[in-house]
Amino acid sequence: MKATGQREGDQVEAYMERLGRQARAAARQVAASDTATRNGALAAMAEAIEADAGRLMGENARDLAAGRERGLAPALLDRLELTPARIEAMAEGLRQIRALPDPVGVITDLAYRPSGIQVGRMRVPLGVIGIIYESRPNVTADAAGLCLKAGNAAILRGGSEAIHSNRAIAGCIARGLARAGLPDTAVQVVETTDRRAVGALLRMKDWVDVIVPRGGKGLIQRVTEESLIPVIKHLDGICHVYVDDRADLDKAVAVAFNAKTQRYGTCNTMETLLLAEGIASAVLDRLVPLYREQGVELRGCERTRALQPDLQPATAEDWDTEYLAPILSIRVVDGLDAAMDHIARHGSGHTDAIVTEDFVRARRFLREVDSSSVMVNASTRFADGFEYGLGAEIGISTDKLHARGPVGVEGLTTQKFVVLGDGHVRR
Amino acid sequence: MKATGQREGDQVEAYMERLGRQARAAARQVAASDTATRNGALAAMAEAIEADAGRLMGENARDLAAGRERGLAPALLDRLELTPARIEAMAEGLRQIRALPDPVGVITDLAYRPSGIQVGRMRVPLGVIGIIYESRPNVTADAAGLCLKAGNAAILRGGSEAIHSNRAIAGCIARGLARAGLPDTAVQVVETTDRRAVGALLRMKDWVDVIVPRGGKGLIQRVTEESLIPVIKHLDGICHVYVDDRADLDKAVAVAFNAKTQRYGTCNTMETLLLAEGIASAVLDRLVPLYREQGVELRGCERTRALQPDLQPATAEDWDTEYLAPILSIRVVDGLDAAMDHIARHGSGHTDAIVTEDFVRARRFLREVDSSSVMVNASTRFADGFEYGLGAEIGISTDKLHARGPVGVEGLTTQKFVVLGDGHVRR
Repeated sequence: MKATGQREGDQVEAYMERLGRQARAAARQVAASDTATRNGALAAMAEAIEADAGRLMGENARDLAAGRERGLAPALLDRLELTPARIEAMAEGLRQIRALPDPVGVITDLAYRPSGIQVGRMRVPLGVIGIIYESRPNVTADAAGLCLKAGNAAILRGGSEAIHSNRAIAGCIARGLARAGLPDTAVQVVETTDRRAVGALLRMKDWVDVIVPRGGKGLIQRVTEESLIPVIKHLDGICHVYVDDRADLDKAVAVAFNAKTQRYGTCNTMETLLLAEGIASAVLDRLVPLYREQGVELRGCERTRALQPDLQPATAEDWDTEYLAPILSIRVVDGLDAAMDHIARHGSGHTDAIVTEDFVRARRFLREVDSSSVMVNASTRFADGFEYGLGAEIGISTDKLHARGPVGVEGLTTQKFVVLGDGHVRR
Repeated sequence: MKATGQREGDQVEAYMERLGRQARAAARQVAASDTATRNGALAAMAEAIEADAGRLMGENARDLAAGRERGLAPALLDRLELTPARIEAMAEGLRQIRALPDPVGVITDLAYRPSGIQVGRMRVPLGVIGIIYESRPNVTADAAGLCLKAGNAAILRGGSEAIHSNRAIAGCIARGLARAGLPDTAVQVVETTDRRAVGALLRMKDWVDVIVPRGGKGLIQRVTEESLIPVIKHLDGICHVYVDDRADLDKAVAVAFNAKTQRYGTCNTMETLLLAEGIASAVLDRLVPLYREQGVELRGCERTRALQPDLQPATAEDWDTEYLAPILSIRVVDGLDAAMDHIARHGSGHTDAIVTEDFVRARRFLREVDSSSVMVNASTRFADGFEYGLGAEIGISTDKLHARGPVGVEGLTTQKFVVLGDGHVRR
């Protein structure tokens, strides 16, 4: 048995290595392809998905049946399901990516230097992107589209529960690539559900340039720990709204309510509300009934509970917790400095907002809070690639190097220096 | 003995942890400081170094004496030595960094979105930079200056052979910081020569945001393998010049000669010369005597040796070797595609140049060669922060994520999104 496991493991390694070599070779062709070719492939991929809608639903039904048999939770089954509307949305998503400007080859800052050479930067593809994701089959099309738009090759490793759906979508992608004259190895879906394939992918640093995990915290932690390849990821979204005592009360209520309740399970949802002492009572009087009406459980610090004795007490742990649920912790602070200290200590560097009418405080908050998105008088829920005008996003990064915040097509590229001369030599 | 070693190891860990905590706290203050304060510190650091020149030479003499006793090679002793001119150059370097524009807080692309919010990007410090370097004490001042300019705190770990010099320079830096009202923990030099300090530094991912190793390949390999923190580095500089058959012969000779012989030990020196078949004979007839006159050892492929039978034969290994010495490998190729294939296979992604008068071939080479610097009709020796107008450089990166190519002040910063609203919520 053990020998068999070993042999199977070797086969998985060899299979992944083959995908990696093919991706590297394809990446050079994709990087050299022109805008019209890549856009043509995106359009053809969208057409193929629409044309194959019936077959996609059939393959998806197999995944759903297997999922029900395995007792998958209803929420997971819902995420797994492909409906005609979701299939249309996948095709539409590819067309939106097609409509974005091509980032590849854009040269900026080209200027003459005293030596006579011209120096500038050219935006170029990263190379090969490895995407590791869970359940939602639409990620297969979205991620393939974004990687291709940015001139990269991609290796996609979806969840085993969606394997039939993902394979069917991969077939449409391959047809689209071929119709545009691009190698069908430019986007490869890992065909095995063997978990060792993930480990192998994370070690292929010669063939893969960056890994993007999309899924729950467990997946992202495993990927971060095991990967020998740079990872674009965020682990936690512990987002704050700080209501300054110079806030407009109506705006404070609107922003704090929206940041918590517009959606609960998203990483840009507020988890802790910080209230300046001078305005806390007024804000709580208006917000507490609104949150209660929505069924949001409220946990307050001692100063909060002095104003609202009915609230649950917040524990030390609450300040470091991403609930992803209708729960909110509330803390009364002395003012701006205490709020920024709290965020520096407990925040996850994702998204934090201040509500204030005070120019100087807004200016300080923007400069001093060290998060991927920092906002004034706006809901944290805006931290999103579409809302920011990136067109689409492959994920949100709370890392500081390379891409930070919502990562769109540009985050899947890098820049190189270009130098133009006329026989120039260095003295 | 083992228990003592363990205890000392724990002490080193605790010491480094303390530096890390202090750096993180200082980084918040530096990040929030204004341009004039940081520039004032840079000027005061330069003054302190000039005022202390005598003491610096005295401390340096201790390092030199110890180095001679340990039998350090003359080249290493030369790199270690501080002369009055080198001390003046350190001070001047800090003044040049002071004169650079402040990258911190620059907001770009601020624009209204359909929702009514304004979204832009603000350039902000990375946080805490760890620099690990060898021998040259001037790196202490250069690295401190660049990190501070970009609004960061720094932990500097120089070689044990320069410990007295580095401590003395650190004293000048601390005085400069204090005079400007910045915490002297904003730049900390590791005071122990215990090698375990490096390992501890590379594990402090809560306190350090990025590691920059500067030194030989051994150091960089160790840092890359051990670090839990992102590393900005380059491993190899296997740089190519490709002389196209539509090259101007004079320019080809000038560029190829300069790229090899202007300096031998630098990472942007050409190691392999690729010659298009049609021009190889003419180029070799002129270049071979020039290289010979400089004492450059030439190793050729078979086609090269058919034209120049006196050359040493190049082995397969030569194409993958960074000589850092007066040695050059030469290969005759069919043309542009073969040259780009060779570079893709054997290059290190550092710097590669084409010499050609042909517009279309130049355009293809610029787009398709995947290196941190790609050049037309210019010597690879131009790949340098000063030559590129970055003002100064902390190193050259051949990684694709974050900074690529020469890394200046901007490479020590990152960008965050800023969102401005007036009570906007997401629908």
